[in-house]
Amino acid sequence: MAVNLPPPDPARLLRVPGFELGVAKAGIRKPNRRDLLVMRLARGATAAAVFTRNRFCAAPVILAKRHLGGNVRALIVNTGNANAGTGRDGLRRALQVCESLAARLGCRTQEVLPFSTGVIMEMLPVERICAGLPRAVGNLREDNWADAAEAIMTTDTVAKAASRRVRLSGGIAVVTGIAKGAGMIRPDMATMLAFIATDARVGRRELRRITHQAADGSFNAITVDGDTSTNDAFVCLASGRGPEARSRKDLDALGAAIADVAQRLAQAVVRDGEGATKFVTIRVERGRSEAECRKVAYAIAHSPLVKTAFFASDPNLGRILAAIGNSGVPALDTDKVALYMDQVRVAKGGGRDPRYREEQGLAVMQKPEFTVRAVLNRGRGSATVWTCDLSFDYVKINAEYRT
Amino acid sequence: MAVNLPPPDPARLLRVPGFELGVAKAGIRKPNRRDLLVMRLARGATAAAVFTRNRFCAAPVILAKRHLGGNVRALIVNTGNANAGTGRDGLRRALQVCESLAARLGCRTQEVLPFSTGVIMEMLPVERICAGLPRAVGNLREDNWADAAEAIMTTDTVAKAASRRVRLSGGIAVVTGIAKGAGMIRPDMATMLAFIATDARVGRRELRRITHQAADGSFNAITVDGDTSTNDAFVCLASGRGPEARSRKDLDALGAAIADVAQRLAQAVVRDGEGATKFVTIRVERGRSEAECRKVAYAIAHSPLVKTAFFASDPNLGRILAAIGNSGVPALDTDKVALYMDQVRVAKGGGRDPRYREEQGLAVMQKPEFTVRAVLNRGRGSATVWTCDLSFDYVKINAEYRT
Repeated sequence: MAVNLPPPDPARLLRVPGFELGVAKAGIRKPNRRDLLVMRLARGATAAAVFTRNRFCAAPVILAKRHLGGNVRALIVNTGNANAGTGRDGLRRALQVCESLAARLGCRTQEVLPFSTGVIMEMLPVERICAGLPRAVGNLREDNWADAAEAIMTTDTVAKAASRRVRLSGGIAVVTGIAKGAGMIRPDMATMLAFIATDARVGRRELRRITHQAADGSFNAITVDGDTSTNDAFVCLASGRGPEARSRKDLDALGAAIADVAQRLAQAVVRDGEGATKFVTIRVERGRSEAECRKVAYAIAHSPLVKTAFFASDPNLGRILAAIGNSGVPALDTDKVALYMDQVRVAKGGGRDPRYREEQGLAVMQKPEFTVRAVLNRGRGSATVWTCDLSFDYVKINAEYRT
Repeated sequence: MAVNLPPPDPARLLRVPGFELGVAKAGIRKPNRRDLLVMRLARGATAAAVFTRNRFCAAPVILAKRHLGGNVRALIVNTGNANAGTGRDGLRRALQVCESLAARLGCRTQEVLPFSTGVIMEMLPVERICAGLPRAVGNLREDNWADAAEAIMTTDTVAKAASRRVRLSGGIAVVTGIAKGAGMIRPDMATMLAFIATDARVGRRELRRITHQAADGSFNAITVDGDTSTNDAFVCLASGRGPEARSRKDLDALGAAIADVAQRLAQAVVRDGEGATKFVTIRVERGRSEAECRKVAYAIAHSPLVKTAFFASDPNLGRILAAIGNSGVPALDTDKVALYMDQVRVAKGGGRDPRYREEQGLAVMQKPEFTVRAVLNRGRGSATVWTCDLSFDYVKINAEYRT
């Protein structure tokens, strides 16, 4: 299953001056798999992040938010345990992990950002994580991005990474990012775990703006199952070892490069959606605002009936109209709505296009990738959301997740 | 599959003076199954209804709303075609059906309420429906409730009907109702199709109030898949042939009886939820308002991850905390939240209850029916929602619906 693109070629993942990565098999949940990642940042690096808005946010999210205010020298990421729904004890354990890594790297506890992903409401096995640290720290290297992408996987079937160069006035900067996630995906101002690093020199405030913009066009525009995780975090890091981005033009170029890497990672998450057999772009146009278009797009993307029709390649497209009608957009005039599957117009004037033939819809839906386009004809806003289908395997994967 | 109670015993469904029912096999979508219901009301009957708030509401819904303003002499219900997403042509076809039935019964077109359920965005086969009318009208009888319940089924695996008597000051009144629905169930101020009839004499305004209250505690408190149908309608009808309900006490008694029948029908819809193997009551207590408790309850009931855990009998209960955290309730203090499965306390103080053992959660979840109870500890509101699990068969049924 899954609609993955070919996995990233490790040789094409660019090193980013100022960042070293080390991984280890700590046996956190299952033996003999990479489940621990340490990232070391050069002194003077800048960081910005967006986090889940789930109120039951995980202990490491609380701590990472707190530590983000000062200097950042290292990140630590474990899989197998989310350390969420764990109360005060969870916070204490996350702090212990930061302390242990700080002591080993010779930095301060507050300079470590912790991240966890895995089962919710189970105690973080601090001893096993700390026992894995020497090994992870021991193999810190700049060319370790592929191993890092693998070390943060949970139900992912492929590692997710992307790189690119961007020309700034002072020279060429590098942007490399990794992400994990396949289920519990409906990021809300954030994502699952994603880390993007650049060697560009950029101010903290500018990096924050770039991060939020990149999130909006990537991790905030995807959904697998509508469930927002307790642990979502998207972090942008700039080491400042490369060229500086200061002019408007340089900042725009760097922002576009980071947004591009973020979008490729976000789409990779959807393509690897649990049980996914289809990668679907939902485009909503001519609404009154981007916000209302996004609302309609998510209503389509979250409807279990639409998603099972995608899975079956069944052009039962009235279900899409029903989802649009449910989106909660005020005073929507359904008589103005038109619906397209790729280039085929399926509905107009509130009903089926008389020229539409079911074979046309079927031909589109049998493809592994297609676009659903709804035109509301009431304004100039638009929005795009990426999603996947709902298959037997989604149920299977999530019914058997802990076994 | 399904968690149905035994189907209603036709002999125990009470006739309601003033109502006759007739059914036919009109071959609307599939041959040789009952798919057409006509209900004739005695002159002077009162009607009240709530309808879907889906903006793509079906043509018959638009027409039924319009006709509800005056006298109601008959209802006509077809399955196999929803006549939704059909634009002006759909309205014209729905009107033709009303005209044809009115001519046959000797009443006015505006005195007929039309209802449709089935596939969306396909043309209503008016000729087949009108050709079935003589047969349906020919077998109009007061004791036909069981056949009527069967005639409105689509993906339902059992017919849904309930009856009871209620003592009013002027004598005993009868309340009998039928409903259909198993998927696309997340009624919003309405339900799938449900019809409740009483012989009590009651004013239109009082009946309207009783109908809304009954909907709130029944069809507006269930969900199978979070998809609100284009055709939802819940109709209460009073023939006035029995005792009068005029005093506060009588109106309360009649309202309670109708609410009770509505709740039994609504629960029957969830028990027959597509692919359901579990019937789950979600109770949220001590929120600031009923509305916020309902929001939390629906967040739990709609989470695909929670629903697949129900299916697997997997006490992966952190998923429930995550759903509570996603519900969008403002300023929720997760440290105050407690979670119970039946009588077992699973979480308190924002994390796992130290005394909770996984075997306890497993024992509850292996039962076909249980209660999830979340206590927010921040107010006096409470709400209950009924739902079912998400199984392989939900995907199967909806991937193969039209084949």
